[in-house]
Amino acid sequence: MNKSMKIPKATITRLSLYCRQLELLEFDGYRMVSSEKLAWLCQVNPAQVRKDLGYFGEFGVRGVGYDVRDLMFEIKKILAVNRDWNMGIVGVGNLGSALLQNQNFPARGFYFVAAFDSDAEKIGKRIFPGLVIRDIKELKTAVQDSEVEIGVITTPASEAQSIADLFLDANVNAILNFSPTQIHVPDCCLVENIDFTIKLDVLTYKLKHELQI
Amino acid sequence: MNKSMKIPKATITRLSLYCRQLELLEFDGYRMVSSEKLAWLCQVNPAQVRKDLGYFGEFGVRGVGYDVRDLMFEIKKILAVNRDWNMGIVGVGNLGSALLQNQNFPARGFYFVAAFDSDAEKIGKRIFPGLVIRDIKELKTAVQDSEVEIGVITTPASEAQSIADLFLDANVNAILNFSPTQIHVPDCCLVENIDFTIKLDVLTYKLKHELQI
Repeated sequence: MNKSMKIPKATITRLSLYCRQLELLEFDGYRMVSSEKLAWLCQVNPAQVRKDLGYFGEFGVRGVGYDVRDLMFEIKKILAVNRDWNMGIVGVGNLGSALLQNQNFPARGFYFVAAFDSDAEKIGKRIFPGLVIRDIKELKTAVQDSEVEIGVITTPASEAQSIADLFLDANVNAILNFSPTQIHVPDCCLVENIDFTIKLDVLTYKLKHELQI
Repeated sequence: MNKSMKIPKATITRLSLYCRQLELLEFDGYRMVSSEKLAWLCQVNPAQVRKDLGYFGEFGVRGVGYDVRDLMFEIKKILAVNRDWNMGIVGVGNLGSALLQNQNFPARGFYFVAAFDSDAEKIGKRIFPGLVIRDIKELKTAVQDSEVEIGVITTPASEAQSIADLFLDANVNAILNFSPTQIHVPDCCLVENIDFTIKLDVLTYKLKHELQI
């Protein structure tokens, strides 16, 4: 890949999707997969698969397809998920607890190594062996001790910005924001938002305008 | 809006974002807002705001800006969130429980009116007044009795497709899918996916390629 080339975000999202399906194919014992089949599994068109992968090099063999394991390995390298990542979470309410116990994260190399809350009743509680909820005031030192690289925010909207600022101050410059608000950060910081109700708004828009209900 | 015009999904997502910020502005007592300010709040550029709204008509007054309440009302109408929606959820594990208790949904007019699980220990458990976890086998009748319009899937990936099929069979043709897999549905059905680990893959990609860590 040309380092100066800006890859569309939709391509990155689809690479992640391809990687999931390649894992399933490998689990099912497949050694090769055509772009047509991979496309069908991911619900995109084959030309899109070839274009997305084309940004990063030549992977398949014309008329033969892709080696499942090789392509999976290459995509993991591109996505930088060929290594483990440490995450710290702020806000151990219902959603935070659910995320901490979600086995999809460690299964993909994302480990919660620190958890914080401001509620005195929660502080000191053990989530799982080795992970105790700490006071939000300890965030900076704890984040540095545990080498947190990704901050996860599951606080109410009103607190999200100040938590993002705390992460930034602790040199964590990648944030997964579950709070239903926009957070403002400098260019050196990356934010991905997961807002459930925005997805619902998209659904209801489509229900009205595309299915004409 | 021209009914045959296909509006970009990114525009719909941003409309939802504008709506959130307009609610906050109204709460703070603002009556007017410029496209520049709205754009800054939503972290997009002002031309984008004007373009997104332009698909649906003329809303602001040049040099004056938008009436906060009017614009919010119009966007809600476009998104079809100027009414309440009934949701049914399948899979009352940690994530499902967190969603059922998430106050952002009812605050925006999205109500869980039915919840299902296949675990005998959970069936019959009361979530909140009026909502008891039911056997997944009762989905079709319960969904119709409760007039569920949106199905929410929080099961493991292995079960997601069969749950989607159950929803379709019960004439629910809008699905919010939290399971980390793609579900296949006919054109008459709408699906929005929320896959946490895909968002993490996008973050790690950007960490490696944009921040060059």
